[in-house]
Order: sequence, then C-alpha cells, then structure tokens
Amino acid sequence: MTGGGAIPKGEFGRIRDFFAPLTGGAADSFGLMDDAALLRAPPGTEIAVTADAIVQGVHYPPDAPPEEVAARLLGVNLSDLAAKGAVPLCYMLTMQLPPDRDDAWVGRFAAALADRQAQSGWRLLGGDSVRTPGPDAFSVTAFGHVPAGTLLRRGGARPGDLLYASGTIGDAALGLMLAEGRPGPDGDIAADAADAAFLAERFRLPLPRLALGQALRGLASACMDVSDGLAGDLAKLAAASGCGAELTAPLVPLSGAARRALARQPALLEMLLCGGDDYELLFTLPPARQKALAAAARRAGTPVTRIGVMTAAPAGEVRVTDAAGRPLTLARPGYRHG
Amino acid sequence: MTGGGAIPKGEFGRIRDFFAPLTGGAADSFGLMDDAALLRAPPGTEIAVTADAIVQGVHYPPDAPPEEVAARLLGVNLSDLAAKGAVPLCYMLTMQLPPDRDDAWVGRFAAALADRQAQSGWRLLGGDSVRTPGPDAFSVTAFGHVPAGTLLRRGGARPGDLLYASGTIGDAALGLMLAEGRPGPDGDIAADAADAAFLAERFRLPLPRLALGQALRGLASACMDVSDGLAGDLAKLAAASGCGAELTAPLVPLSGAARRALARQPALLEMLLCGGDDYELLFTLPPARQKALAAAARRAGTPVTRIGVMTAAPAGEVRVTDAAGRPLTLARPGYRHG
Repeated sequence: MTGGGAIPKGEFGRIRDFFAPLTGGAADSFGLMDDAALLRAPPGTEIAVTADAIVQGVHYPPDAPPEEVAARLLGVNLSDLAAKGAVPLCYMLTMQLPPDRDDAWVGRFAAALADRQAQSGWRLLGGDSVRTPGPDAFSVTAFGHVPAGTLLRRGGARPGDLLYASGTIGDAALGLMLAEGRPGPDGDIAADAADAAFLAERFRLPLPRLALGQALRGLASACMDVSDGLAGDLAKLAAASGCGAELTAPLVPLSGAARRALARQPALLEMLLCGGDDYELLFTLPPARQKALAAAARRAGTPVTRIGVMTAAPAGEVRVTDAAGRPLTLARPGYRHG
Repeated sequence: MTGGGAIPKGEFGRIRDFFAPLTGGAADSFGLMDDAALLRAPPGTEIAVTADAIVQGVHYPPDAPPEEVAARLLGVNLSDLAAKGAVPLCYMLTMQLPPDRDDAWVGRFAAALADRQAQSGWRLLGGDSVRTPGPDAFSVTAFGHVPAGTLLRRGGARPGDLLYASGTIGDAALGLMLAEGRPGPDGDIAADAADAAFLAERFRLPLPRLALGQALRGLASACMDVSDGLAGDLAKLAAASGCGAELTAPLVPLSGAARRALARQPALLEMLLCGGDDYELLFTLPPARQKALAAAARRAGTPVTRIGVMTAAPAGEVRVTDAAGRPLTLARPGYRHG
C-alpha cells in the first residue's frame, strides 16, 4: 500500500462495489455472496444456454480498452441468444485477470457491462474471478428464455427454403484488417476516414440482433448467427439441416463502406464472404412465409435480405454463384479466431 | 500435416469425437452442434448455478496431467453444488488451449471428464473452445437441482447453532506444500512415503461431498464448502449469517497423516486451519437436530465432526480457541489461489 494510490479493493471489494450492482439486486443472485445462484425460468418458457470465451490478443487487440472488451464479451454471447430467438435472462461471468488489471480497469469494465446490460435487459447472476500469469480472458455462460418449444435451431432448413441474412455482411472483417493495419490486396481498403471509422466500429462493437431473432420464432425454419464468416457458417447450417445451399454472392447485403471498398479492390469479395465477426443472423424459411417475414423484420426494425436458397445437394455443400448463376470458388470458406 | 503423426482433428473433430459423447446423447445438447442448448429443471425443482475457473500454474501445477486437471475442474464445481444440497444436472465448459495441447492431451482430458461424470451422474450440456497464447485455462458453469425452496445457503446460521465440518481438514494444504517441495517450518512434513502419497492425493483429487450436501437439506441452517481455508471460510459463513463463530481448534478433524505431521511440527496448526483446497463441507444446525444429523451423515456415508458454535459476536468475527477455551491468534485467516 503505497502513499500515492488508492487502497486496492481486493476480491471482496471488487465484487461488492463493481459486480454486485450488476445483479440488479435480484434475490436469486444472493448479492454474489453465496456459492451458487438460483436460475428460474418464467412460467411456460424454456431456458436457452450458450457459452463463449474471449482471450486478449486472440479475440480482441491486446490494448483494447475495457469498454471494448465488455462490448465484445456480452455482444458475442447475446448474438448466440439472438440466433435462438431467446430473450436475455441473465449470465454467469468468469474472469481471468493478470495483476496489472487494476481497480480502475476493472471498474471501467464493470461500468461497460452495466451499460450493455441496460440495452439488452439482462443481468449478472454470478461468477468467479481468478488471477492468471497469462493474457486476460473472460467466459460468459448466457441464459435466455423462449416460449416452450419455440427455440430456433440450426438444423431445420429444407431444400427450397429461402436463405436470408440480416443487416450487412463483411464490415467487421474489413474493420479488423484496418485495426491490424493490413492493407487490402491492392492497397487501402477504406475510401475515406468516415468509411474507415464505420468499419472499425463494426468490428469493435458487435450488435446482437435480439429483436429480429425473437421476431423469427415460429417463422424461420433454421437460424444461426454469423460469427465465423458467412460462407463457412452457411455450410454449418446446411450440414446441420442435412441439405445443401446456394449463395448468390451479388445478393449479399453490403454497407456503403464495404461496397466502396469492393469497388476499389474486387479481390476483397472473398474476405467479405468468408471473414468473421459479423454477428448478423443467417436464417431460412419456406417461400410461403416471405410476407410474414417482411412484417416481422419491420416490427424488429432490422433489414433482411434474401441471399440464396437451400438445395438438395449433399449435406453441407455450399455453392457460391455470381449474378448469372456461375460458380465462384472461395479459397477459405471458413474463418475462426481460435 | 507431416507424415509421422496422426492428422489433427481440428475443432469440429474434437467436438465430435471427444466432447459430444460427454453429453450422453441428451437431446437438449443438440450434439454440441448448435449455438445453444436447452436447460430444463425436473418438475418441482429449482436450478442452482455456480461457476469456477482454473488456470494452469495458478490452480494446478504447470505439468499436471490432463486427468488431474479434469478432476480438479469438475471437483471444485461439484463441491459448490454439494454445498448447496444440489443434485448434479449438467455443465457448460469453456476451454482456452495453447497450441501445444494436442489431440492426445485433449483426448485424455475428455476421457477423464467422462470418468468423473460417471461418478457423479452429470453430463456436458455445451460450451466453447478457443486458443490462447497463455497458459491453459478452463471454466465450468455447473447446474444442479434441488426441490424448490430447499437450497442450502451461507447466510442461515444463528447464534447457538452448532458448527460442523465433514471429513478431515488441512490435508490438501499439506499436500500442496509437498507438491511444491516446500518443507514445513521445522523440516519434512510427512512421517513416511505413505503419508506423503495420501496428502498429495488429497490436494490433487478433490472429492466433492455430494451425498452429504443432499442429506443436509432441511437440516443445516447454513452450509458452504471449504475451498479457501477453514478459518477464512468460516468468517464468510458467519458474515453472511450476521453472527460470530467460535472454532475449537483441537476439535477440528484431522487425518492420521495430518496428525502425524502436526506432532512432528506443531507450527503447522495454522496451515491446517487456514490452508485451502479441502473441499469439505462446513455447516451449522440448531442443537435439537444433532440426532437427525447423525442419521443423515450415516446415510451419506460421510463422517461429520462438531468443531465449534455460532455466537452473538459481531458479524463475521471468528474466535479460534484451544481445548481450554483460550484464544489462539492466526496470522492469515484466509487463503486464496487467485
């Protein structure tokens, strides 16, 4: 305890001051002061559970501010809940922190968790904090609820179902290239500073599509979130559904910034289709439900775009075509952080 | 892919071959091939949730075999469920693995998880695996169920309640000293090789007291597991209960090996009372329930020993005494890995 700085809070103080408030005072968390918490599903619902871990230097830059780490941690987990049509309920958090993560860093991290919680209506249920000699790392187990029997699945697509994506695809992959200072194959990616800022933000702050996921319950035949790249994730959805898929590349929705980057460097197409971290929803539905989908997307305030169709090809076989239906070959259909 | 070795399985292959079998084929895990799983409580029960993370070099030796890592990971989490009186239901697992954890290591780790699961009747529900440039680390979120309203809590003890511990205390702390090659204050701890092996095993392989915890439902007024040291954990139980406690040191149950170590080195008493990793249960109950406790402990096949009493002292104040009731002073009441 040196004279200059504040007295370190210690584990107990951090729990009391930073993390207990994140429970919203819910009785089932016991103020984070017991060995366990109680998890209760609202009547008539089922609980969807998902877990995602992120590691410094693998899933976010080593010098990422705590606000960015918190946004990514909750964002990737909320995106999994969104893909299941679930309403966020609560989450368990384990933290591995090196000694240099001081109270100031942890306090900012917790404040950012609070901000994200407020946006999505969920809360901390419990967790654990340990020290590590390695990079910091965080693991969340996320709970959401759905009316019993309505969980959206990966494996429900059938040949003839139409294939859709939400929002825009590929921004985050370009944003990561910019963040890492990697130019495109032919030089600068971004047309200007505004485009560069937009793309970087799309990588840094995943935006889970919760409203759309919930609106797709009872409508989509299959759904997943696009975290490892559109083409590779589509192959997973097709494989789980026991069918094939045809993806029409020119239909894939691109942001203005991504369209301008592609115009400057056509070779970026593969990066857009195969890069990770979009956190958009990829889903299918029978053609007869197109009108209901349009209404659901409007209700959710989320744009959706038809990008292809499920086929009778062997399970997991994805054909990517140009506007004329000619096949395009992708060198690396999937991308994975770690 | 070099000629000599087996072809690496990759993430998908590891999930399919090593981890999907750990779900026991339960439909709610979707074969670990979806973004989420479903968590269902048996009718009339509530779900207890707890999370614990362990890090190589912090919670287990850097060269610990995968079997020991698996035993510790499941053991510490099952011990938390035991302390709540819960029946193990399932768990979520996130793994952070450095590149040198090859398929052989991961396969042995998964096989050891399977062995431990078989002993406790629970199963894998879902999870995540990511790579790390740091030490390997694992996080489990554990689910158990209890009849609604019967969860054992830390905060229910009242002045006059009797204080009990299960099994024996302090073995693991001595085992850790042996594992790290640290002698006691006055030389060798263990009387002989058999004692040394026993103590080392007690550190390496935590044995959760599941049967006892379940037998204590409706009987114990407060319960927690002893993971950070008896004296420090007792202070937490007392604080949560808003009362004080008196711990009679000579009543604390010791194994033969620990008794022989203490006879050789009386200064080890503090280590026995304050060292971590016992994973025994510490609990309280009104004196009128002593007979019912004896029956419950017999039913659970677990020895229990009265070690003190809860008092009207200020919340969290623990007095440690010798056989004559004279106070003993401990330099470091609590111990924490990380």
